Amino acid sequence: MAETQELTQATENMSLEQNITPWEVEGAVVDGVQQAIDYDKLVKQFGTRKIDDALLERFETATGQKPHLYLRRGIFFSHRELEKILERYEQGKPFYLYTGRGPSRGHMHIGHMMPFIFCKWLQDVFDCPLVVQLTDDEKFLFKNDLTLEQANEYAFNTVREIAAIGFKPEKTFIFSDIEYMGGAFYRNVLRISRMVTYSTAKASFGFKESDHIGKIHFPSIEAAPAFCSSFPDIFGERKDVPCLIPCGIDQDPYFRLTRDVSQRLKHKKPSLIHARFLPALQGSTSKMSSSNDVSAIFMSDTPAQIKKKINRYAFSGGRTSLDEHRMYGGNPDVDVPFQYLTYFLDDDKEIEDLAEGYRKGEITSGEMKARCIAVIQEFVGKFQEREAAITDADVKNFMDPVYPRPYTALAKK
Amino acid sequence: MAETQELTQATENMSLEQNITPWEVEGAVVDGVQQAIDYDKLVKQFGTRKIDDALLERFETATGQKPHLYLRRGIFFSHRELEKILERYEQGKPFYLYTGRGPSRGHMHIGHMMPFIFCKWLQDVFDCPLVVQLTDDEKFLFKNDLTLEQANEYAFNTVREIAAIGFKPEKTFIFSDIEYMGGAFYRNVLRISRMVTYSTAKASFGFKESDHIGKIHFPSIEAAPAFCSSFPDIFGERKDVPCLIPCGIDQDPYFRLTRDVSQRLKHKKPSLIHARFLPALQGSTSKMSSSNDVSAIFMSDTPAQIKKKINRYAFSGGRTSLDEHRMYGGNPDVDVPFQYLTYFLDDDKEIEDLAEGYRKGEITSGEMKARCIAVIQEFVGKFQEREAAITDADVKNFMDPVYPRPYTALAKK
Repeated sequence: MAETQELTQATENMSLEQNITPWEVEGAVVDGVQQAIDYDKLVKQFGTRKIDDALLERFETATGQKPHLYLRRGIFFSHRELEKILERYEQGKPFYLYTGRGPSRGHMHIGHMMPFIFCKWLQDVFDCPLVVQLTDDEKFLFKNDLTLEQANEYAFNTVREIAAIGFKPEKTFIFSDIEYMGGAFYRNVLRISRMVTYSTAKASFGFKESDHIGKIHFPSIEAAPAFCSSFPDIFGERKDVPCLIPCGIDQDPYFRLTRDVSQRLKHKKPSLIHARFLPALQGSTSKMSSSNDVSAIFMSDTPAQIKKKINRYAFSGGRTSLDEHRMYGGNPDVDVPFQYLTYFLDDDKEIEDLAEGYRKGEITSGEMKARCIAVIQEFVGKFQEREAAITDADVKNFMDPVYPRPYTALAKK
Repeated sequence: MAETQELTQATENMSLEQNITPWEVEGAVVDGVQQAIDYDKLVKQFGTRKIDDALLERFETATGQKPHLYLRRGIFFSHRELEKILERYEQGKPFYLYTGRGPSRGHMHIGHMMPFIFCKWLQDVFDCPLVVQLTDDEKFLFKNDLTLEQANEYAFNTVREIAAIGFKPEKTFIFSDIEYMGGAFYRNVLRISRMVTYSTAKASFGFKESDHIGKIHFPSIEAAPAFCSSFPDIFGERKDVPCLIPCGIDQDPYFRLTRDVSQRLKHKKPSLIHARFLPALQGSTSKMSSSNDVSAIFMSDTPAQIKKKINRYAFSGGRTSLDEHRMYGGNPDVDVPFQYLTYFLDDDKEIEDLAEGYRKGEITSGEMKARCIAVIQEFVGKFQEREAAITDADVKNFMDPVYPRPYTALAKK
């Protein structure tokens, strides 16, 4: 009996640090209570810089474009040397975008869309090439029950979805690692792997001796597309074209390592811009995950499914009764439907009004959910229309490493 | 003073185990004296089997061929399941040969020739396909001062030399890892790497935490050609064609690991046949090495260079004076010129006569050297004639992964 009490107390007092790696994203646990992810702490821990108003102004001056809502609202909140890319843009010097995705079974969810939506906007603003790495090899290496054929098939399915984002076909190369490995890409993988010791990889990713050598070697493969010489069909013999990598903050360890080796490889350091995670339907203590079906809204969901999921599962910052809500107001900061609106509703004025109205109790949880449902239904619906229009030829073109495209001009500049 | 004495004694009493890894080959040191490599000990340590007379008879019965001098003289002395290959040969079932080479600067030496000479003989006897892996990536990974371009260039230079051995062009595929990486080969590399933990690799190869992740991952790449599905242009969709790997005994750790994973990969275990090392000119405590110019006779050496090297550097088992030699006789077992003759002179009777005459003091060290010089000059000379006849088109054909050759028939069987 005494023992049981002690155990209970131990659990209640249990505290765990937050754990953010490329494979796990979990908020801290304080006295047994799961906390939201502390992004300021991550910025300190990883040694990145927060995106501040001055940088946003700089962005607007350089590009003549109002920053994307993800920038205005601190969704892409952190960076490494973003200003260097802006400088190059001002000077008319080339650069490219690099992002990636670990293809999984089934469709992408709205959280997966974020870096791609942002990349599309960046590609429109900068009119620059984009390379998208599909790490089907990583998925195979990190999921023991997955066959290589499955991982590779997921990659091909994913291309269709990525193509539906609306990237410029003549400036976008989407590749599966399994398919593209070889040639200049493999050469860079080799060069990188010679510069990263097991100790360093262990310190960066927490590898253990029981981990297999495929896993331990994988960071070389995620690093390689950050070097333009991995894409001779786009950049020719050039080594001086840097990239900007929009990614989830959890991917930063890969690119810290990439930045470390870039000078020895005689390439420019990649710049980074980091996103927060889209919260799971259940709240901001964890990120939306495709392995948890009720945590996610998929790009293949019907309007009815979207409606049902948000109504049933979305964590509400409202009060337990309508009377109480009207009296004391709700909390938009933890309200998942409101959070989702901040990701998908461009109108700043409406966002402000919704937050204020919610705090005052003028807008109910049901009304907030209804608005969220409408916005996400529209977003997903439009995506599905575009996806239906993607042909096999489009997929083939996006995956063709031999760029029959204007940007080959870069190779000659 | 006392300290110096102690140090001297420590050195004199110093004993070290023999150290045989894919990167280092050193005999034991007993009481400060370097010993010849103890091959019986290696057989025990690695858990291989010695090739005995019964197996040689079996070989002769199965193939109808007198075993090669390397077999008769215990130069290829150890194996793993060689009998399974003989069984398949008797049953008319397909198999292939797999060997490799880490290409280095400059020409091959006569020690490098051994596995290839043996492979040519096996290919003639069995009339089977041969794949030759040039591990230019390994060379790059294990030599920090080497550029990738250099390693790759060495591979191409090496193809010309290997082609000059006289392999059947229609059944021989020679590939550089750097060039061939990708496709089915990369898929097998991935599959293998997922099955080998860092602990296992550490135990097999002695990796340390300060080693880089390229090195640690490399065993997956040397293992992959042992699986026929790495070569779809030769074997089509088949997974059931095993290989026989003739190699130096130092390469056994790679293939022990390969055999361990083969069943989980649904492939047949490779069989192995292991060679002793060709001794350095200085004697059988170390192997001939291209990084030590005076230890080696190169395939590019002129007759005069061969003569000079053997006369000047070859360790002699003769006595210090001619009178003593005539009186007490020499020791052919440690005499490097005699040892070389056992590798390159096919005539068993002459070998016996030379050994006996040497023991009796009837044959002098000078005469033994002269015979050795003549045999090696002829061997190298004939090689150089063949090499001069190798065209760029021959090199291209050997390296063409798309087999325009009869053995594609295998894919359909």
